[in-house]
Amino acid sequence: MTGLDPTYIDQIVRMALTEDIGSGDITTQLTVPENAEANAEITAKQPGIIAGLDFVQAIFNSSILESPSAEVRAIVLPNVKDGDRVNAGDCIAKISGQSRTILTGERCVLNILQRMSGIATLTAEYVNLVSQTKARIVDTRKTTPGLRRLEKYAVTVGGGYNHRFGLSDGILIKDNHIAAAGSITAAVNAVRNGAPAAMKIEVEVTNLEQHNEAIAARADIIMLDNMSLEEMRKAVEIVDGKALLEASGAVNKNTVKAIAETGVDIISVGALTHSAPSLDISLNFIK
Amino acid sequence: MTGLDPTYIDQIVRMALTEDIGSGDITTQLTVPENAEANAEITAKQPGIIAGLDFVQAIFNSSILESPSAEVRAIVLPNVKDGDRVNAGDCIAKISGQSRTILTGERCVLNILQRMSGIATLTAEYVNLVSQTKARIVDTRKTTPGLRRLEKYAVTVGGGYNHRFGLSDGILIKDNHIAAAGSITAAVNAVRNGAPAAMKIEVEVTNLEQHNEAIAARADIIMLDNMSLEEMRKAVEIVDGKALLEASGAVNKNTVKAIAETGVDIISVGALTHSAPSLDISLNFIK
Amino acid sequence: MTGLDPTYIDQIVRMALTEDIGSGDITTQLTVPENAEANAEITAKQPGIIAGLDFVQAIFNSSILESPSAEVRAIVLPNVKDGDRVNAGDCIAKISGQSRTILTGERCVLNILQRMSGIATLTAEYVNLVSQTKARIVDTRKTTPGLRRLEKYAVTVGGGYNHRFGLSDGILIKDNHIAAAGSITAAVNAVRNGAPAAMKIEVEVTNLEQHNEAIAARADIIMLDNMSLEEMRKAVEIVDGKALLEASGAVNKNTVKAIAETGVDIISVGALTHSAPSLDISLNFIK
Amino acid sequence: MTGLDPTYIDQIVRMALTEDIGSGDITTQLTVPENAEANAEITAKQPGIIAGLDFVQAIFNSSILESPSAEVRAIVLPNVKDGDRVNAGDCIAKISGQSRTILTGERCVLNILQRMSGIATLTAEYVNLVSQTKARIVDTRKTTPGLRRLEKYAVTVGGGYNHRFGLSDGILIKDNHIAAAGSITAAVNAVRNGAPAAMKIEVEVTNLEQHNEAIAARADIIMLDNMSLEEMRKAVEIVDGKALLEASGAVNKNTVKAIAETGVDIISVGALTHSAPSLDISLNFIK
Amino acid sequence: MTGLDPTYIDQIVRMALTEDIGSGDITTQLTVPENAEANAEITAKQPGIIAGLDFVQAIFNSSILESPSAEVRAIVLPNVKDGDRVNAGDCIAKISGQSRTILTGERCVLNILQRMSGIATLTAEYVNLVSQTKARIVDTRKTTPGLRRLEKYAVTVGGGYNHRFGLSDGILIKDNHIAAAGSITAAVNAVRNGAPAAMKIEVEVTNLEQHNEAIAARADIIMLDNMSLEEMRKAVEIVDGKALLEASGAVNKNTVKAIAETGVDIISVGALTHSAPSLDISLNFIK
Amino acid sequence: MTGLDPTYIDQIVRMALTEDIGSGDITTQLTVPENAEANAEITAKQPGIIAGLDFVQAIFNSSILESPSAEVRAIVLPNVKDGDRVNAGDCIAKISGQSRTILTGERCVLNILQRMSGIATLTAEYVNLVSQTKARIVDTRKTTPGLRRLEKYAVTVGGGYNHRFGLSDGILIKDNHIAAAGSITAAVNAVRNGAPAAMKIEVEVTNLEQHNEAIAARADIIMLDNMSLEEMRKAVEIVDGKALLEASGAVNKNTVKAIAETGVDIISVGALTHSAPSLDISLNFIK
Repeated sequence: MTGLDPTYIDQIVRMALTEDIGSGDITTQLTVPENAEANAEITAKQPGIIAGLDFVQAIFNSSILESPSAEVRAIVLPNVKDGDRVNAGDCIAKISGQSRTILTGERCVLNILQRMSGIATLTAEYVNLVSQTKARIVDTRKTTPGLRRLEKYAVTVGGGYNHRFGLSDGILIKDNHIAAAGSITAAVNAVRNGAPAAMKIEVEVTNLEQHNEAIAARADIIMLDNMSLEEMRKAVEIVDGKALLEASGAVNKNTVKAIAETGVDIISVGALTHSAPSLDISLNFIK
Repeated sequence: MTGLDPTYIDQIVRMALTEDIGSGDITTQLTVPENAEANAEITAKQPGIIAGLDFVQAIFNSSILESPSAEVRAIVLPNVKDGDRVNAGDCIAKISGQSRTILTGERCVLNILQRMSGIATLTAEYVNLVSQTKARIVDTRKTTPGLRRLEKYAVTVGGGYNHRFGLSDGILIKDNHIAAAGSITAAVNAVRNGAPAAMKIEVEVTNLEQHNEAIAARADIIMLDNMSLEEMRKAVEIVDGKALLEASGAVNKNTVKAIAETGVDIISVGALTHSAPSLDISLNFIK
Repeated sequence: MTGLDPTYIDQIVRMALTEDIGSGDITTQLTVPENAEANAEITAKQPGIIAGLDFVQAIFNSSILESPSAEVRAIVLPNVKDGDRVNAGDCIAKISGQSRTILTGERCVLNILQRMSGIATLTAEYVNLVSQTKARIVDTRKTTPGLRRLEKYAVTVGGGYNHRFGLSDGILIKDNHIAAAGSITAAVNAVRNGAPAAMKIEVEVTNLEQHNEAIAARADIIMLDNMSLEEMRKAVEIVDGKALLEASGAVNKNTVKAIAETGVDIISVGALTHSAPSLDISLNFIK
Repeated sequence: MTGLDPTYIDQIVRMALTEDIGSGDITTQLTVPENAEANAEITAKQPGIIAGLDFVQAIFNSSILESPSAEVRAIVLPNVKDGDRVNAGDCIAKISGQSRTILTGERCVLNILQRMSGIATLTAEYVNLVSQTKARIVDTRKTTPGLRRLEKYAVTVGGGYNHRFGLSDGILIKDNHIAAAGSITAAVNAVRNGAPAAMKIEVEVTNLEQHNEAIAARADIIMLDNMSLEEMRKAVEIVDGKALLEASGAVNKNTVKAIAETGVDIISVGALTHSAPSLDISLNFIK
Repeated sequence: MTGLDPTYIDQIVRMALTEDIGSGDITTQLTVPENAEANAEITAKQPGIIAGLDFVQAIFNSSILESPSAEVRAIVLPNVKDGDRVNAGDCIAKISGQSRTILTGERCVLNILQRMSGIATLTAEYVNLVSQTKARIVDTRKTTPGLRRLEKYAVTVGGGYNHRFGLSDGILIKDNHIAAAGSITAAVNAVRNGAPAAMKIEVEVTNLEQHNEAIAARADIIMLDNMSLEEMRKAVEIVDGKALLEASGAVNKNTVKAIAETGVDIISVGALTHSAPSLDISLNFIK
Repeated sequence: MTGLDPTYIDQIVRMALTEDIGSGDITTQLTVPENAEANAEITAKQPGIIAGLDFVQAIFNSSILESPSAEVRAIVLPNVKDGDRVNAGDCIAKISGQSRTILTGERCVLNILQRMSGIATLTAEYVNLVSQTKARIVDTRKTTPGLRRLEKYAVTVGGGYNHRFGLSDGILIKDNHIAAAGSITAAVNAVRNGAPAAMKIEVEVTNLEQHNEAIAARADIIMLDNMSLEEMRKAVEIVDGKALLEASGAVNKNTVKAIAETGVDIISVGALTHSAPSLDISLNFIK
């Protein structure tokens, strides 16, 4: 898993805190003394894979949460690290510091940690289901607007792999591209002629005839779109290592294992980022 | 429902397209001629409430999708409007224009429309479940970082109401505020003395003793946190119109109707924005 | 008074310094050696209430004023704190550090400190004039574009209260809204039905007939616009605690006391932010 | 007078509207129908010079005020132009269009127009007082953080001139620069040697001895700081056209004429931007 | 060649104009009447390939160059299009419109057009030198900070190809990576295991032994760094189509042809963006 | 030479690193362990003047290059300072720290340092050629979009001077301005009447007749555009100290000395920023 740099983390934190706090947490400022201190714990309320711990400290470090005159800040002591599995009741991190900082930052901490851990947890389930095969679980572009890097990182924390980040760093020739170019062969040639040589060329096919044409056109990766298990097995047999095969469409927890067993190299799962339920996590003050 | 202004819509569209397109949709640019035109349809693949149509036209209007030399742009003709109910197979909008524009913008259109319609659809289910009562369904601050306005708008499209936008435009005194201030009475007085007079004061209580104290302190709204139905009924009886009552905690589709029938005024549901599954929607080229 | 967070302070400081310094303080760079150090004092030249001290240190801390190779920075030792009253000749803060930093930052320090202290001083005069009554002095939206938070903070430093921050965090039904909705009753009902339940509803009225209608419609706050003292007294008598009353219009230092004595709860004064003269403050190098 | 470009105007408008409107003008959206139209007038309530008319149309044109589905926008028909003198009761501009747009933009229109017209009006008073002399009235760097261009433009509308915009586009050697460099001569030489040849060199002097040294050092402009009228007359006599003379300090409406009559070329007045009272202007709906 | 979208163009234009114009083109505003109109021509003063024409119209369209009250804007009529070859004296485009707009925008137009055309022209020279071979000329990351997309686009206009845009969209294993990983084999395996499957793996080698190891590790592209012609010929012979070969280092106009004739697939040339001399182009008013 | 402030440096660094790194240096993250450390040297590969050292440390300090969990950062120990002359093989700076930080930042360090040192080196050559005369070498507005401050700083490091930064901080009346105003005299008078008194007025002339008119109109600086040496000598004789003279046009290393010897005060050279070849500099890991 390749990490997120502090500048990116800081940018997300700033966006989240600014949106939530507006011109100030008026309730906390009027009820909690500036010098009050507290201890708190972040606790898992269901089992899962934790992702996003760097955001917790970054939120409590943010100058948006700082009172100009306060000397105490909130310190985070993580009990686990990104990628660790927790059980319900496990302590994820301890926090001690200024009560106001903890109270005002709490909601953003949980919003981010729950979402990222939810994605990591769902990814790990898929990875586990195909662990007896060589297939990689990869994500898609079906991510939340503005949060793609964060969500793709969470996929890697759960053991998955990233597909292209966006439209400019990968080539994927789909049905409408093929139609516009005239044929798979024409489309692949146009791309090979115009695109950087360092980019692999992926072609989406829906049947074995197209599959054969893609192989003949020397596609680097072939996406088998909504094919039956039978067709996928055939496609694996035909390709014989001349290209990587990616299965796509109708992938869910019930079907992923059988798909992997057909011998495809890659299985893309939109649900990883699109429908991952949040992991239930709470933050509680302790005495 | 109060709308989203074009400047906000444009800002979200820019964030989404920039992230997805990077330095250019290389596949489309190499396979689809600049002057090719196409017609497409956005179709519901499951029943639900549509939200976010202003984003569809805004995406296809974005100069990020424009070729400097192209004269044709993509026009969107919506068949429905925000808040309308659709069935599987219903056409949501027709699009006609430059093939490149439609292909490059497709993913962002679907990512936004599916998320917003998912929230509106889930909200409408909750609203429908309590329709025989006076209870309002309201959202929470459990939203996606950076997308709170968009998601809160989708809640109103589904018939729900918005709770405070963030920490600066509403007062909600919770357990840790009460502990810091010494008592509910002390906390409410501190807030009444310091906050703008135009703000209502809401207090979270977990039992009837606290409830009575909140009423005596003249709280404007009392949040009944994780109370039993029996306790809520009692709370309604006791308050006798002297404050609004909000039910919170353990609200789901199975429990919401009974909660509403206790007579509370407001029911807050984190799941509206936190766990709404995307509505399945597709975009297809037509001949 | 609820404070300004360091991120906001930093943003204002950056805007002010960038505008003033452009590509560099050429005079200082060519005449003052990089390693020269100096001591300076910020002094009040007339009596008043000081507001904005956090900005002084923030300006001298700004990396815009930093020379990459300098090791000395300017340290600010405040003699007073926000809200303190000073007399002419009183030292507000001592500064010691790099001469260049102090010289280049001087103008921005004074521009901000004079404006904020001017607002706090004027507010305190109004607050003092009504101190024998229960009336609160509140600000309005008649603020300087881009500086509303800063100016509203200065009002609280002077002992005043804030009205709504802007159009989205408070409801104020004025004559044109009433005309559009058909009546006060219709307007209040439309708002009650559509707005978040946590928001109070304020209605502007110009005579006692409207006042009665607003009470009957259960407005939370009634703004008495340009009413005579006699009418305001009547309005207080009529409302009998069923709503808060806000006096508005023709409020100045000569009239505010009599207005407060009518028994209204709130008096809004546009002049606090609109016409507060700057407090005269100077920064001098000392030997 | 050199104008403000639309991009700058748009940036100020965006800052003002965003700050004021937040997530939406909830009162207007709930009480005024989307298709309601209205006519309104902007009227002077006291005599003065109008400045800032470009902002009025820019505000009502802003997409922040636009409803995605509205077809009508607010059109502004100005009766006067920047620099025109108006009397109390004069119509400044007529507006017709969408009621919502006019109501939501009203406060920002008035906040900007009143401030700019106030500066232009005060400047014109100073310019008028010295009109029988050759002296130019110029502004200073004592402006509102973030609004310097706007305020300096308003000064030119009132017939004044701009001094340097900030620290990088003009040289002004003050007492602390002289002290650091060792002498006026040393300071001027250091600047002449290091600064772009296209920049004039201005030196601040407080007595005639320094004045003579500045002339000898071939300063282009000499600022006479807080000198008596007698000294200024002497300074004019001495300099004999070898440099421009600028009077500064203790300039007010009572003193400015006598100062101008000493024969100085330039009189700088901090109060133009620092203490100009707003011009009273209102916006009213008309039947 | 894949184009630049209008949003990117607009962003570069805004950066260039803002930097150049500051608070206004004071000379033009004081000497040229607002309603003056003019015709002008952009002319090549030396032969070359033109790139960047979209920027010319975008600059003259920019609202930064617009006077709020002007009705005439500058229209650009291009005589050629990006990629066309011109001779000295050829008219590149005619401009007609507001004199002020043309004069104020002139410098930015030329700064951008000269730079981009310089890169396109130099690239075309390299492409021409290898036109009898299969070798592609590609650019590097040796670009101007902030202008990479613009410069890489100019390379494609000249007939070159783009290498990876930056560090995240391509894999290039260099000597220090190899040293850290232990061996070429270890480095390639680490990358293959961790990187998206859609990315090709490129390895830099400096001798034939490394070359053989890279082939054995199944690198997709092998960069031959500073190899002799003799070594490159051997490398081509050895690889036998199992990987693409890229020549790098000591490439200039004297050596590129011989390098291409060794049979390598790709030749990367830092000088394309790093040292391309500007193409001499002028803008003149015509009667 | 007047320095660049850290905020500006940081802004350029952020722009460069963001552009180059995108979502992460995938090669380095997969091949180099997070805790690996290294030493490296930046070395001149040809003789020249170094400029830009503050950027080297700023790049390695940037949080974009920081791993959240890493404790080691890259420390830069410069051997020289801006303005120092180096020979081929000279060590410019030593770097020690986290291997990943050094590898990922390397390209941006070199791109900036090579460009700035190239400009400083070329400037120094021109300055040296005219060192026996009083002429100053100055830059122009022919700079790279977005990098003007950086490039103008590099000119001062090489011993040159800056001309105006942009259109708002200097007056230069050119042929089209003269034509629009009617005559040199009319143009100068219009500018003198409207521009700030602190600005010098420069006029471009192409023959001695215009030269005489400019002197008579009391221009502060006269730009002799593309005049012959003979004409320039005449112009110097005629002006007799009544204005500064600037030579412009057809200035190159072969002509600059003779131009200086005509007695002009200033020689402007577009090539300083427009065509300075990068100085060859490398960064190498050392054992």
